[in-house]
Amino acid sequence: MKHLDYTLYLVTDRSCMTSPTLEEGVEQAILGGCTMVQLREKEASAREFLETARRVQTITRRYSVPLIINDRVDLALAVDADGVHVGQQDLPCSVVRSLVGPEKIIGVSAATLAEAKQAQTDGATYLGVGAMNATTTKINTRSVTPAQLAEIKAAVAIPVVAIGGIHPATLANLSHTGVDGIAVVSAILAQPDIRLAAAQLKTGFQERIHG
Amino acid sequence: MKHLDYTLYLVTDRSCMTSPTLEEGVEQAILGGCTMVQLREKEASAREFLETARRVQTITRRYSVPLIINDRVDLALAVDADGVHVGQQDLPCSVVRSLVGPEKIIGVSAATLAEAKQAQTDGATYLGVGAMNATTTKINTRSVTPAQLAEIKAAVAIPVVAIGGIHPATLANLSHTGVDGIAVVSAILAQPDIRLAAAQLKTGFQERIHG
Repeated sequence: MKHLDYTLYLVTDRSCMTSPTLEEGVEQAILGGCTMVQLREKEASAREFLETARRVQTITRRYSVPLIINDRVDLALAVDADGVHVGQQDLPCSVVRSLVGPEKIIGVSAATLAEAKQAQTDGATYLGVGAMNATTTKINTRSVTPAQLAEIKAAVAIPVVAIGGIHPATLANLSHTGVDGIAVVSAILAQPDIRLAAAQLKTGFQERIHG
Repeated sequence: MKHLDYTLYLVTDRSCMTSPTLEEGVEQAILGGCTMVQLREKEASAREFLETARRVQTITRRYSVPLIINDRVDLALAVDADGVHVGQQDLPCSVVRSLVGPEKIIGVSAATLAEAKQAQTDGATYLGVGAMNATTTKINTRSVTPAQLAEIKAAVAIPVVAIGGIHPATLANLSHTGVDGIAVVSAILAQPDIRLAAAQLKTGFQERIHG
């Protein structure tokens, strides 16, 4: 699989967006430095999700940024997305891998070392680990400390992205964890200047975590 | 494709069940004469849906009754179900056909002649047409009259199953429509004796519609 840059991973959530359209928000985020985009549409019908994915994909392809579909493997296959991201309540990673084949990116949410190791064994391409902080865009999250994040990162060979309430002010907590990137929702999409917010987060990550 | 019997098509809904488990309800319904089973789990996570599908599939395979998965094409592929059923807000039939290949059953919900013809063009195996009556197990349904159902049946070559509030008392409305079967939820699963309810509906259908 080609090299992937997980530095600044945008996860979408329409409910917190400041841009008029999702496509516009995604484009601004990419112009600000986002390196991956995950489309998460928990409230949409499959038809709406499909149409949204096709619109967003015209943007991500223009900038050669990987597009990942949350949960719905069928949708990821239908639009030939770069990959799919599944949580612990979604289809198991092993099942997803059998459906999408060896080339597609599979991200798995993990909140414990056991989940992280299992996902790696089952064919995950990367891990999303969190929630690192309290978050307003997802309910019923489990919390992960920076020390647990560092332990997971040290225990697996695949890239690890930190997620959950990550903002410029909480970046410092990740300093010694060795994570490959940060996944954010509202810290980019809910900001008045999406492009600027992305650029500042990227600089902050590069200075504090990989500085 | 092998001959399919659409006479009495059970659609599941946990919220109205009288049996202790879904598997038990499905088995009783099959023993009463159900010829197809659609698993509809709108509230479940994909993981729960997958586990439920595997349990129900041990029953449907035992009796050689086709198992159809509602909406989630990825789940249908994951368990190698016999087919998938999609509504007008789910993935389009043409997309579903490209994902599942030529052999799987694809059912499409249609409430108009235009939707019915489009589904047939797009590769649907059968149509679910309704709602024929007011129903308690689905919200925001559009209504279809017996005359409209008959018009759709006459206009397409694929089997047509009537759905929506079908009970013994409303069966007579379908008498001259020529439908291939009836799809029911609460008229079987919400009854005190599921097997008896299925048997009575099947007899009623055979006497009144194909009598």
